[in-house]
Amino acid sequence: MTKVSIIMGSKSDMPVAEKAMAILKKFGIPFDIAVASAHRTPHRVEELVMGSDSDVFIAIAGLSAALPGVVASFTVKPVIGVPVSGAVNMDALLSVVQMPPGIPVAAVGLDRGDNAAVLAAEIIAVTDASVAAKLKDYRKEQADKVIADSEKVVADAGCRGVHRGYDRGAQAEDHREGHHSLLRRGG
Amino acid sequence: MTKVSIIMGSKSDMPVAEKAMAILKKFGIPFDIAVASAHRTPHRVEELVMGSDSDVFIAIAGLSAALPGVVASFTVKPVIGVPVSGAVNMDALLSVVQMPPGIPVAAVGLDRGDNAAVLAAEIIAVTDASVAAKLKDYRKEQADKVIADSEKVVADAGCRGVHRGYDRGAQAEDHREGHHSLLRRGG
Amino acid sequence: MTKVSIIMGSKSDMPVAEKAMAILKKFGIPFDIAVASAHRTPHRVEELVMGSDSDVFIAIAGLSAALPGVVASFTVKPVIGVPVSGAVNMDALLSVVQMPPGIPVAAVGLDRGDNAAVLAAEIIAVTDASVAAKLKDYRKEQADKVIADSEKVVADAGCRGVHRGYDRGAQAEDHREGHHSLLRRGG
Amino acid sequence: MTKVSIIMGSKSDMPVAEKAMAILKKFGIPFDIAVASAHRTPHRVEELVMGSDSDVFIAIAGLSAALPGVVASFTVKPVIGVPVSGAVNMDALLSVVQMPPGIPVAAVGLDRGDNAAVLAAEIIAVTDASVAAKLKDYRKEQADKVIADSEKVVADAGCRGVHRGYDRGAQAEDHREGHHSLLRRGG
Amino acid sequence: MTKVSIIMGSKSDMPVAEKAMAILKKFGIPFDIAVASAHRTPHRVEELVMGSDSDVFIAIAGLSAALPGVVASFTVKPVIGVPVSGAVNMDALLSVVQMPPGIPVAAVGLDRGDNAAVLAAEIIAVTDASVAAKLKDYRKEQADKVIADSEKVVADAGCRGVHRGYDRGAQAEDHREGHHSLLRRGG
Amino acid sequence: MTKVSIIMGSKSDMPVAEKAMAILKKFGIPFDIAVASAHRTPHRVEELVMGSDSDVFIAIAGLSAALPGVVASFTVKPVIGVPVSGAVNMDALLSVVQMPPGIPVAAVGLDRGDNAAVLAAEIIAVTDASVAAKLKDYRKEQADKVIADSEKVVADAGCRGVHRGYDRGAQAEDHREGHHSLLRRGG
Amino acid sequence: MTKVSIIMGSKSDMPVAEKAMAILKKFGIPFDIAVASAHRTPHRVEELVMGSDSDVFIAIAGLSAALPGVVASFTVKPVIGVPVSGAVNMDALLSVVQMPPGIPVAAVGLDRGDNAAVLAAEIIAVTDASVAAKLKDYRKEQADKVIADSEKVVADAGCRGVHRGYDRGAQAEDHREGHHSLLRRGG
Amino acid sequence: MTKVSIIMGSKSDMPVAEKAMAILKKFGIPFDIAVASAHRTPHRVEELVMGSDSDVFIAIAGLSAALPGVVASFTVKPVIGVPVSGAVNMDALLSVVQMPPGIPVAAVGLDRGDNAAVLAAEIIAVTDASVAAKLKDYRKEQADKVIADSEKVVADAGCRGVHRGYDRGAQAEDHREGHHSLLRRGG
Repeated sequence: MTKVSIIMGSKSDMPVAEKAMAILKKFGIPFDIAVASAHRTPHRVEELVMGSDSDVFIAIAGLSAALPGVVASFTVKPVIGVPVSGAVNMDALLSVVQMPPGIPVAAVGLDRGDNAAVLAAEIIAVTDASVAAKLKDYRKEQADKVIADSEKVVADAGCRGVHRGYDRGAQAEDHREGHHSLLRRGG
Repeated sequence: MTKVSIIMGSKSDMPVAEKAMAILKKFGIPFDIAVASAHRTPHRVEELVMGSDSDVFIAIAGLSAALPGVVASFTVKPVIGVPVSGAVNMDALLSVVQMPPGIPVAAVGLDRGDNAAVLAAEIIAVTDASVAAKLKDYRKEQADKVIADSEKVVADAGCRGVHRGYDRGAQAEDHREGHHSLLRRGG
Repeated sequence: MTKVSIIMGSKSDMPVAEKAMAILKKFGIPFDIAVASAHRTPHRVEELVMGSDSDVFIAIAGLSAALPGVVASFTVKPVIGVPVSGAVNMDALLSVVQMPPGIPVAAVGLDRGDNAAVLAAEIIAVTDASVAAKLKDYRKEQADKVIADSEKVVADAGCRGVHRGYDRGAQAEDHREGHHSLLRRGG
Repeated sequence: MTKVSIIMGSKSDMPVAEKAMAILKKFGIPFDIAVASAHRTPHRVEELVMGSDSDVFIAIAGLSAALPGVVASFTVKPVIGVPVSGAVNMDALLSVVQMPPGIPVAAVGLDRGDNAAVLAAEIIAVTDASVAAKLKDYRKEQADKVIADSEKVVADAGCRGVHRGYDRGAQAEDHREGHHSLLRRGG
Repeated sequence: MTKVSIIMGSKSDMPVAEKAMAILKKFGIPFDIAVASAHRTPHRVEELVMGSDSDVFIAIAGLSAALPGVVASFTVKPVIGVPVSGAVNMDALLSVVQMPPGIPVAAVGLDRGDNAAVLAAEIIAVTDASVAAKLKDYRKEQADKVIADSEKVVADAGCRGVHRGYDRGAQAEDHREGHHSLLRRGG
Repeated sequence: MTKVSIIMGSKSDMPVAEKAMAILKKFGIPFDIAVASAHRTPHRVEELVMGSDSDVFIAIAGLSAALPGVVASFTVKPVIGVPVSGAVNMDALLSVVQMPPGIPVAAVGLDRGDNAAVLAAEIIAVTDASVAAKLKDYRKEQADKVIADSEKVVADAGCRGVHRGYDRGAQAEDHREGHHSLLRRGG
Repeated sequence: MTKVSIIMGSKSDMPVAEKAMAILKKFGIPFDIAVASAHRTPHRVEELVMGSDSDVFIAIAGLSAALPGVVASFTVKPVIGVPVSGAVNMDALLSVVQMPPGIPVAAVGLDRGDNAAVLAAEIIAVTDASVAAKLKDYRKEQADKVIADSEKVVADAGCRGVHRGYDRGAQAEDHREGHHSLLRRGG
Repeated sequence: MTKVSIIMGSKSDMPVAEKAMAILKKFGIPFDIAVASAHRTPHRVEELVMGSDSDVFIAIAGLSAALPGVVASFTVKPVIGVPVSGAVNMDALLSVVQMPPGIPVAAVGLDRGDNAAVLAAEIIAVTDASVAAKLKDYRKEQADKVIADSEKVVADAGCRGVHRGYDRGAQAEDHREGHHSLLRRGG
């Protein structure tokens, strides 16, 4: 049984779909994929959506990107829409995000197939502790990578790194909003 | 038998639809109307389009205006799309105009229900001399109104109107591109 | 126990939050609300997010709407972002949707508190059959309302409604993509 | 006798015109072409339009793309406008689509010479069954290509394709709007 | 004999034309006006332009504002284009300013009929010392008004005005670029 | 001696200037104000800037808002630019923020006279402990107001407030990036 | 004595300036050029403008393109502004065109140094018959080039050229607005 | 002790950071750098900001660039935000500049790391005469470079440079606003 169905409006959207697939594989979430165009194959979109057992749909499309909204019209499962970049960009982005009342699409950023998959994983993780654990690991990896990048950047530039002498643990109690000491040093 | 089917995505699009209806009535073109939402009633849109005998569809929608494209996905009849204004405007306009290759929508301007109807009439007039004649009359009315407006504006302002001493008929022969005298006076 | 936490960046976002609350109440989904600003009360946002048991967060903000992203930085629960309209509109919309890789926000349309709540319900409904049933009822209500609106619009305008003689049930088999008869009448 | 006249504002618009020509050739629709600039050769545009027997005009232009509107000012035949991309894009797109009341232009997407030709064919097909048949074949080709692309994408990625177990024909009757079962599986 | 011809695309552009007329009257520059639409009355525009003896044209239009460019296509006299505001604004602004190579329009700001007239006066003043003198007086009036406004603003607010102790006359010699003292005090 | 000079490009910018004045008064920072237009009174701008002893300049302007950049051209003191809203908004915003290399302007948001003053205070506070203390008080006030707003919103809506059971002080040590427990509850 | 002064804000604007220089040379109009930055060398801009005997200024700049407006602030001669393209484009375009009331700049299109020079020539030609004659020749050259391009395009494509059987000279009299026969054939 | 802390949201922002570092080194202003993401490492951002002794923060980020605002939420020190270019550009630019009331960010132009550093230097120079002197030298260098560029451009083009016969020093007294002679020659 699949958990996520990825539908792209055109074969040319594959690089964006691949970002999503890489994340889903990393998290061990079963998925299936298809090319189906809201405008060229409307019945196929309907059949794929209504015939799918997936919990979440990821719909990827460019230009007047109707696909995510059309997928959403055939299901009450969460539909994540990924606008694909082109000559205009705002066409796909606004087509995906500006859905009318009642039929939401969860829009992620331009070409952000990766974030669509992370969001799908977060939705699944609401009731799947194992995926939730993997998401937390992934966050840690990302944070570790930021720290490693920072060290590399400082080393390459041959300059000082921003000092990190502040101890949130010891001082957090004094610094919540409503306390005068909030901005004791940084402020 | 109707010639034009007007489908609006929401009851709130009625003021734009009314502009179209007024023009179609003026030209004596039979039409029918419906509210049908690409996102809330996808099967209804399909049924209305595939069950219609109309020669031309006018689809009116705002926000991520998928309706014109969805109508176009179910027919090879010409589909005219009218984007409806809102807080963003570019959402509906780009959703209607930026259709992918193979499935065109004929986009008219924001809230231009009137122009959608004139364009529908122009399409019908390709093989209907009576509608063609009405279109020419309508053009003449528009031109007459511009001239009347001009006279009123000049009178109200109490100033000179732009002189119209130039006689295209007598002089056109001398003024086509490729002739040095093209811009004899105005130039 | 709450299921959804609604956090708005400013008291002035309340009308958008109210749209979300109305939908959640309709679906019987328990929720809580708070005002917390990513910029004015960063620690409060952290505390509310990390202290919450909710399954889904709805974050509502205008201008350089950092709130949804900041909420997302403190949780791997799904975060739905609602951009709030203002003098620019694109500021909030782009701030919410254009999240960097790894930390998604599920953006809905400008001022679409209602859709944020429907999306939250869809996420909960992945494993909650009772909410799923309510979502299907809500879809039916929406579809019924479109049909009622259509009848009213036709009656008010005193004109023909688009004929609906096409029977999808009987004919669908013949009309799927790949069959020449796809566009038999509408086409 | 030609059916379609393609007028481009500049020789540099030829790649967009070629997309239109390829489609018209494919459909066996006779056409003629010309370069004529609304700003540099206004009389030539007038002469070409008023001297043409074509049923439909396709006008292709970039920047402050006045050509489609100027063509429309000299005829009541349908005029399809194709905005051409450049450093700004919105200049041509808005110039073509935002026509004033009374004089419509049928705008298609940026650089969409192909869609201009398909739309021209759709207009001709209103009363030409042979072109209508070709349009339906073309739709089938497009749908077939989507399906073939889908199979290739699935094969290349080495993953599952979205299952298509849903039978629209058998089930459509139960799923129209207004029936509770609408979203029985997909929903 | 008139010096300036003001052509507006629609009667509704009159408020913008009135700003131009007020300035031209103030400067004693003879002008005439007309309503003429590039799209609804193309021949009238041609006749007005080619029949006019004016030295400068001011063309005022909204939406896909083709009028200034069309006027320019019939004359080598300077043509000043004034985009008129509407639901989109960028449509008129870009249509006026983004003219193709060879046929310039002098675009002024949105609804800036006043600036169109000042620019027309500046063009006339190139060889008309009396208009040049009036322009200098107008500049002085504007500067005086700024100073008076400043004094009123300071008085109303009951606060200090920015001190003006710096003597450009005495110190300018020391402050041109290339001198270290350039930014002696302000810097 | 003044610390901040507020220069607005037009008397009509006074409402934006008043927001700045209110903040500076609240912080007890001496300031002076003037109307001076970069375009109508260029020498006056130069004189005001070069004759001023202020540490910081706030320049407020709309349309093609050159004033902040022109002020910056005459001083190496920090110049804060406030774009003023109008029919276009992006004109002023981009004119203020997109300064060329070497001559920065510190742009704040559209109509954000208040933030310009807070930023001026922050600049002064770098070496003025008394202003720094007032800024911290102001932050606390803002945070308190958010909390009060939140309580009022919860009370008015008659619903649950987001629970705040999480204790940053006790738990922060365990939650910094790089620790698996980062997202222990919220995640 | 020069007639036109070209001032560019940065050496990198030279390609745009060269387009202007080529046109001015072609028309035999004497000009001079300089690099001068509104922000880096404000006094130099003032000195160049106030010391120049030119009849027309062309000011070329990118980003927050203040240069044209600053030039205009020091003269009542016509100032033509050329916005230069970059990462944003709208920054320069809006900065040049959206001048406040009283101080116009004649904006031409993005990177349109050529059109700035043609416009300068048109301004000079108001009272210089020899330049006017060259402008008419230039128009003829442009028209001839369009016709030659058209023939080449038709030949290369191996298809029919748009027929040009319509004789404006003989028929213009019958076709002016207000006559029913206006759109006799083309319509 | 450092004076400026540069925080970039991603390692990929390093080219923009390097522009800032080059300027700070040139001025001899001690600084430190770090990579820290508002979304991936929120606690790290808090710790770096609250643990830093720097007088000014420079925060560099692209997409929905929350970093500058998040830095500002933890300090009352001046925070300079640098939006980084990408597929959309307006996302980062608006996210940085459109901060809500009370928490300003000093936005500089897209990718303008250099200007962020100059602005930081200007802030430090308010009370540091040595940095102020270096800023004035830097301005002189920039002005000298403009003049050298101008001479090179004139020489390369083989044409006349704009004459600079006007003597601001001798004539400035006569030319301030309010004097009729203001525009004596240039005007």
